[in-house]
Amino acid sequence: MLNRANTPSMRILVCPSGFKGSLTPGTAADCIEAGILAVEPSAVVRKVPLVDGGEGFTHALVASTSGTIHQVPVMGPVGEPIESFFGILGRNNDEPCTAVIEMAAAAGLSLVPSNMRDPGSTTTFGVGELILAALDAGASRILIGCGDSGTCDGGAGMLQALGGRLLDADGVPLPTAEGGNSLLNIASIDLSCIDPRVRGTDIDVAVNWHNVLCGPGGVANIFGPQKGATPEQTQLLSLAMDTFADISSRILNDDGVRLNPGGGASGGLGTGLRLVGARLRPRYEIVMQYVNMLGIFEDCDLVLTAEGGIDDQTPRGKIPAEVARLAKKHDLPVIAIAGTIGPGARVNYDIGIDAFTCIIQRPMTLDDAVSEAERLTRESAESVMRMVEVGRMLGRSHSRIVG
Amino acid sequence: MLNRANTPSMRILVCPSGFKGSLTPGTAADCIEAGILAVEPSAVVRKVPLVDGGEGFTHALVASTSGTIHQVPVMGPVGEPIESFFGILGRNNDEPCTAVIEMAAAAGLSLVPSNMRDPGSTTTFGVGELILAALDAGASRILIGCGDSGTCDGGAGMLQALGGRLLDADGVPLPTAEGGNSLLNIASIDLSCIDPRVRGTDIDVAVNWHNVLCGPGGVANIFGPQKGATPEQTQLLSLAMDTFADISSRILNDDGVRLNPGGGASGGLGTGLRLVGARLRPRYEIVMQYVNMLGIFEDCDLVLTAEGGIDDQTPRGKIPAEVARLAKKHDLPVIAIAGTIGPGARVNYDIGIDAFTCIIQRPMTLDDAVSEAERLTRESAESVMRMVEVGRMLGRSHSRIVG
Repeated sequence: MLNRANTPSMRILVCPSGFKGSLTPGTAADCIEAGILAVEPSAVVRKVPLVDGGEGFTHALVASTSGTIHQVPVMGPVGEPIESFFGILGRNNDEPCTAVIEMAAAAGLSLVPSNMRDPGSTTTFGVGELILAALDAGASRILIGCGDSGTCDGGAGMLQALGGRLLDADGVPLPTAEGGNSLLNIASIDLSCIDPRVRGTDIDVAVNWHNVLCGPGGVANIFGPQKGATPEQTQLLSLAMDTFADISSRILNDDGVRLNPGGGASGGLGTGLRLVGARLRPRYEIVMQYVNMLGIFEDCDLVLTAEGGIDDQTPRGKIPAEVARLAKKHDLPVIAIAGTIGPGARVNYDIGIDAFTCIIQRPMTLDDAVSEAERLTRESAESVMRMVEVGRMLGRSHSRIVG
Repeated sequence: MLNRANTPSMRILVCPSGFKGSLTPGTAADCIEAGILAVEPSAVVRKVPLVDGGEGFTHALVASTSGTIHQVPVMGPVGEPIESFFGILGRNNDEPCTAVIEMAAAAGLSLVPSNMRDPGSTTTFGVGELILAALDAGASRILIGCGDSGTCDGGAGMLQALGGRLLDADGVPLPTAEGGNSLLNIASIDLSCIDPRVRGTDIDVAVNWHNVLCGPGGVANIFGPQKGATPEQTQLLSLAMDTFADISSRILNDDGVRLNPGGGASGGLGTGLRLVGARLRPRYEIVMQYVNMLGIFEDCDLVLTAEGGIDDQTPRGKIPAEVARLAKKHDLPVIAIAGTIGPGARVNYDIGIDAFTCIIQRPMTLDDAVSEAERLTRESAESVMRMVEVGRMLGRSHSRIVG
């Protein structure tokens, strides 16, 4: 057994993301805490489960402000009616009424049946409906989270829901909610009939700052395939985004639309929202505003974070990378626990993640890993802590004499 | 990146077992070393790949003494001729000629085609042939390694190869090499025609000290199923071992044959060898005699060991457990790297393994894990070292002030 005589208790910050389809951020934090305490019952653990702009964004912000969740029927990504929701943040009397919307609640990939995964035909129409519902509820400020989208329509459906019209070269409006492929046929966008309340509302959009609209690193090329696009569909969608970027550039009088940070978020929804006056912001700025991330690194010795997958995309705005970036400002070591370690994961060693490990304990299927995720995550955290504990003892006795 | 300013280089002992069907002990040690040096280029790594009595025993002892390997055709476990081998240890002029035999080279589970895995019918006849070949080569001392067997015949086939006869109640000899089930029919064993050189030879048998011949923890019950026995076959074999134990007790004038330590090794071969004067010894005593295990823990800060699987059977004589037992005499921390973490693995925390981890990085098949084992083991060792390094820094700065 580890001999911890004279070893002071550690103060550990636990700030995991969720494991998509498996563990919520809160459950992941609980599992990691349990693993820590199994090794160090006297450890001081501070849990700060984190979300990006995707699934869980609304509930996390509502929970952290004691706000409310509101159910709304909207059109889902494949055109069928679905039950969706938005949040109203809790507030003091003098604060504005702020609504929170996660685009994934109306147009997320998990709402697209796997046999219908063609991002050229899915729509963000329901996101526009959520915005209208938030305005109806009296919101004077709206936070929109991007992430986990199943669409690639540049927010065209959302614009139509708000009153906008997509026009072809003859000025004829395109049908409603046709998805990304229809953008190939547009010549202009008519925003004159957009619900007037939209322009009068402060809209902040939480986006992954690394997502751009066009080019080889654009949203169609990077995310099209994982949303179900074939190579041919991906190429078509990439052209559609080019067309959409040209028109948006004229409306916004901005030559940089193709490569603006965050403009490619959620299949180009970021750019679509800019057309109605929304402001794109790095998603961690918004999340941190509500969980007070800056304070959490104080009085802390070690940071444990987690995410479903750690790979070469992690440094591009994923939670463990953002946690590491902030932790390193405080000179804190960071260890990440992953459901899966993917290709190129080593790059994370260069951005402040000092070590990472995988929860898997044997050759097994994804389904088994998902169903055992709580135990595996707890035991992985225990293993991590045991290795750190071995190191701590070695660090304290570096002039040891072996008997 | 880890900041190792002022952190002294570590001295690390790497003593893994192999990963059966995947990595030899030597390759495992090389992979772990590479992982360590990727994190700590100045670490002093001492590699001592370890074997138990099973596959690899002969080559490891021959390699450590600069001895020779000798090919011999013998009868395999299912009765077919196979090409087998034994070793002659390198020696100084005044030392006796010592042969090394691993029973798995003539009767191992990996020599039994998976559709013929019935330990009631497989034979150790080839082990007896290897002993004769070693005697023909001039050996005056023989080391026999037990482990990885595909048989459960009490060494009956081996005895027959050496000249022994199994007799039924009418004194009629049983046919040759019929396997464990035939022991149900024996009433006595005639050892009068055993090759006379055998009695004049020092035979040491390296056995797992936890393996006993009979009872609920006996070799048929514990290992029968993994050698392919159905529940019915296991029960029959258990009865066969009881019969064999009764007869052996009379020959050896030893009431304890049923539960003697190591008597159940390799499907009861341990007991069969006792009948011709061999001495059973805990396998680590023999291995250590050749790799000088006792010296290797000196001038060492940390021990890394490894095995294909870590589970609730590990404390029962498996390499990581034996390494931990010895390391703890020197008060050294031990971390184990596993291909698979199995049920009940936590018990290893109580026997001196301070932490363990699994090399798997994602939900995957066993075949993929085997084919990627070198990279996975190297990266796992790197991850372990990175966590230890985080701990070392924390241990050295336990009065840190967070800026």
